[in-house]
Amino acid sequence: MHPELSIFTSGSTHKIRVGVLGSGKGSNLVALAEAARLPKCPYEIVVVGSDVENAGILHRAADFGITPVYLPPGRYRTKLEPEAEQHAARVLREAGVEVVALAGFMRILKNDFLGAFAGRVINIHPSLLPAFPGLQAWKQALDYGAKVAGCTVHFVDQGIDTGAIIMQMAVPIEDTDTETTLHARIQDAERIIYPEALRLLTLGQIEMQGRLCRHAVAKG
Amino acid sequence: MHPELSIFTSGSTHKIRVGVLGSGKGSNLVALAEAARLPKCPYEIVVVGSDVENAGILHRAADFGITPVYLPPGRYRTKLEPEAEQHAARVLREAGVEVVALAGFMRILKNDFLGAFAGRVINIHPSLLPAFPGLQAWKQALDYGAKVAGCTVHFVDQGIDTGAIIMQMAVPIEDTDTETTLHARIQDAERIIYPEALRLLTLGQIEMQGRLCRHAVAKG
Repeated sequence: MHPELSIFTSGSTHKIRVGVLGSGKGSNLVALAEAARLPKCPYEIVVVGSDVENAGILHRAADFGITPVYLPPGRYRTKLEPEAEQHAARVLREAGVEVVALAGFMRILKNDFLGAFAGRVINIHPSLLPAFPGLQAWKQALDYGAKVAGCTVHFVDQGIDTGAIIMQMAVPIEDTDTETTLHARIQDAERIIYPEALRLLTLGQIEMQGRLCRHAVAKG
Repeated sequence: MHPELSIFTSGSTHKIRVGVLGSGKGSNLVALAEAARLPKCPYEIVVVGSDVENAGILHRAADFGITPVYLPPGRYRTKLEPEAEQHAARVLREAGVEVVALAGFMRILKNDFLGAFAGRVINIHPSLLPAFPGLQAWKQALDYGAKVAGCTVHFVDQGIDTGAIIMQMAVPIEDTDTETTLHARIQDAERIIYPEALRLLTLGQIEMQGRLCRHAVAKG
């Protein structure tokens, strides 16, 4: 299913080159970039792209010395135009990107992009998928009356938040929660599991069996 | 929405009379019945019904000195015949039942029963709803590749596992889990939250706002 993952072999001698795409403030980028500075981190972030000119995430990228790139989305509202997808893929390819991490990227990616990074695009979603896919998952959870929320790191496939799950973390929903407090609690969890999932993936320690992701035991 | 719940006022002088319906071994009945023996427990279980003649849950009921009743389901496979529903409701009513707790009851209840106990039927489901409604939720979670599972205590409404959520508890899914080990871990969580949810409900400490259940703060 994901033969492309075999390039991330345990004991790779180079850092895996990661590109990040986002549309917002860039809090998950900051978590990934801080983790990338830790000793022995198996990945480095080499480029950050945004469909929003002047988005916070581009400024955060610059703070970390990472190249920020504005990627004009074209005239669609919820996805990129095919030419814009091809352009985005080309920019990342030229930066040597091997894995793409979406961090609050608010457009659906189609095959012009996903085909260029098949099985190498991951995302973080603010719910315990398959519950509450789509927008404002924390608000959906509150409106439903759920008592447990969380976040999910998953591979991006053709569906909306349907790809194979790499990692999840649960957080409680309190009776006193507002959208703001619950979203903040979920984001705290995101900042824990996103860097860790990317670390395991780029270490070559995520094994796929169909749509099941397992933490591979290192072979000695 | 649930005016019927107002009978469970804080400081009720009698124990709320609970009827339990189940089709299987009765592990959740045991958890509820053990909790009912604790000092100051606000509920007592007065009757246990099963659509399965000789089901384990009927024997467990007898172990606790609770009246076991076989409730012939009629000729349907996934629900009770209307006459069977009416009969079940009558049996529970005659036992003075005020709240019905489903514990592994494998038939869908319709209006002949739910109407008789409007807003007073609760269930425990082995997933973090709205994820994985329906049968064998633990297997659904494993097959999906989820990393977090759990269980949900909820009110029973006309839908399948769609009612207002009273309590949820998350448990991890391990890479080494089988259906058996995951189901056992979820059942451990069920045995924690089901008695506690029933305790809060029968204490009059669950407040409804639309489909949202909140833990009411005791008024002094």
